[in-house]
Amino acid sequence: MFPPHTPVGRIGEKALLRRIRSRIKGARGVLVGIGDDAAAVETGAVSLITTDSLVEGIHFRRGFGPDALIGRKALSVNLSDIDAMGGAARYATVSLCLPSEALLAFVDGLYDGLLERARETGVQIVGGNLSRTPDAIVVDVALLGQADTLVRRSGARPGQVALVTGSLGAAGMGVRLMEEGVGRDGARVEDERERRCIAAQLDPAPPVGFGLAAARAGLAHAAIDVSDGLSGDLLNVCQESGVAAWLDAGALPIDDAVKSLAQERGGDALDLALHGGEDYQLLLAAPPEAVPGLRDLAARSKVALTAIGGFQEGEPALRLRTGAGDAALVPRSHEHFGSG
Amino acid sequence: MFPPHTPVGRIGEKALLRRIRSRIKGARGVLVGIGDDAAAVETGAVSLITTDSLVEGIHFRRGFGPDALIGRKALSVNLSDIDAMGGAARYATVSLCLPSEALLAFVDGLYDGLLERARETGVQIVGGNLSRTPDAIVVDVALLGQADTLVRRSGARPGQVALVTGSLGAAGMGVRLMEEGVGRDGARVEDERERRCIAAQLDPAPPVGFGLAAARAGLAHAAIDVSDGLSGDLLNVCQESGVAAWLDAGALPIDDAVKSLAQERGGDALDLALHGGEDYQLLLAAPPEAVPGLRDLAARSKVALTAIGGFQEGEPALRLRTGAGDAALVPRSHEHFGSG
Repeated sequence: MFPPHTPVGRIGEKALLRRIRSRIKGARGVLVGIGDDAAAVETGAVSLITTDSLVEGIHFRRGFGPDALIGRKALSVNLSDIDAMGGAARYATVSLCLPSEALLAFVDGLYDGLLERARETGVQIVGGNLSRTPDAIVVDVALLGQADTLVRRSGARPGQVALVTGSLGAAGMGVRLMEEGVGRDGARVEDERERRCIAAQLDPAPPVGFGLAAARAGLAHAAIDVSDGLSGDLLNVCQESGVAAWLDAGALPIDDAVKSLAQERGGDALDLALHGGEDYQLLLAAPPEAVPGLRDLAARSKVALTAIGGFQEGEPALRLRTGAGDAALVPRSHEHFGSG
Repeated sequence: MFPPHTPVGRIGEKALLRRIRSRIKGARGVLVGIGDDAAAVETGAVSLITTDSLVEGIHFRRGFGPDALIGRKALSVNLSDIDAMGGAARYATVSLCLPSEALLAFVDGLYDGLLERARETGVQIVGGNLSRTPDAIVVDVALLGQADTLVRRSGARPGQVALVTGSLGAAGMGVRLMEEGVGRDGARVEDERERRCIAAQLDPAPPVGFGLAAARAGLAHAAIDVSDGLSGDLLNVCQESGVAAWLDAGALPIDDAVKSLAQERGGDALDLALHGGEDYQLLLAAPPEAVPGLRDLAARSKVALTAIGGFQEGEPALRLRTGAGDAALVPRSHEHFGSG
């Protein structure tokens, strides 16, 4: 009916809503989906709710990758939060602010990614909102989940081990590459390592389900998703738990592509792993006796899990142990309102 | 610690989050509030969820009224949706996108209004998100509620009566006045009628609780909140219900201030009541035998309720009955991506 290069301003809100609605089927647990004043969904005794937004010019740029990846990421960053609480994500609403010159193709692509990621993770998109904005696109997802066993940031205790899933630093390296123009405007990226880092940035893959499994097995005493950067997020666990923590620099699972690119280009791989942000991995605190069980669970879930340090008595602060000794580690987290 | 005229870019996200968090107390039903990966709340078997955003330059302008009213409205527009489903609002998340030059005073004012409106309506603010934006402020609220009896847009049947709460047209007149500069930059508005219309626009007062009461009493068969405009929202009920509807122009509860100002200034009060939008009143469909019960309920709730037309067999379409006869009524709803 409308060609993909039609600006949404020419389509109008109602027709755009109808188009989105036609792509979303009712599903288990959804009593009322898109198209009423509110969605109605079946919930349990305890629900989790989180919200996170992607803003054009801050978190993404149009044309830097397929639009579908913006949709995938908008859901993934929220999935990561629900999993880090030990919950299972179930229902999402999508609030989309669009300038009138945004193209229908963008909205279609965004929903391709949202719906694909939702299918992968058993999430139902149940509602949302469309609004005009004078300038930057904003995609705001609210995600509703359920949990039997909550895992807080505040559960870390002295003597517990700090563990992290996956690898660190690739998303941070990806931003750096993209800022230098690698892969801009859909240009093909030949270097496999660069492709990996840019993919980590554009299409993060939190270990969805691992936080839930660890919570149900009673193996994780605290958890946080690594979104701001390992250092800042670990310090946050310390602040919420009232403990100090140390990291073993040699143990950090720095992404191989990051190590190799940093060596070649002169960057600091350890710095990216500590402060890069947007890894969307899971940082856990567990007593030593729970570590073997967590390792089994990780192996069964095909999730890499690495012990990277520990918690101890003390004021909330971090120390980094390297071959050269032990020194205070000051987080340089991603700060949304900072100069960065 | 920070003077109110500090730009948020100088405060940083973490400090701003701490400031917001310090204002929000834990409350009934909230197991985990702000400060973890997600909020955890007690819910019933059926939850309602809705989301709506206010965008600077589209839905509000800084400095046009107290910032607190932006916070109040961000919650009110969502409260209206939950009530129109027959639900009770319980928990809200607030996703706030701010340019770095936005002032701390704005955030404080916004939260003054959000928290005040939340207290008035028994809602707990349980989480949210702060993000930088290059330009326009976006306030996106997701609101979670519960319901025993759902009232859909699809329940209208031929022979039923259309009723609306409150009065119509004031918010639309308010926009018009503001566009003409009335009350700009906090200028005092001397005319009581103008004040009333601007207040209706800046601080809408949906009849929260009336939709819930009507649902529980089994008196409303369909409901929608009048946000886009009476004509567009009534047509939407027709489309969802597969019926036609007519309106009696003489019966519409056009706001007295709108009638008086339109007469004086040469505007069309009926037009504003039909198409103006943002009234945030409740439009109901009820069988004739339920109308006395609804009137009793309205009287007890101190809500004005007016029968304005009815539903009949036919393709989804509207007719307007006036002294001059009966004619097709084509909605001219607020369209977010249109030229308006």
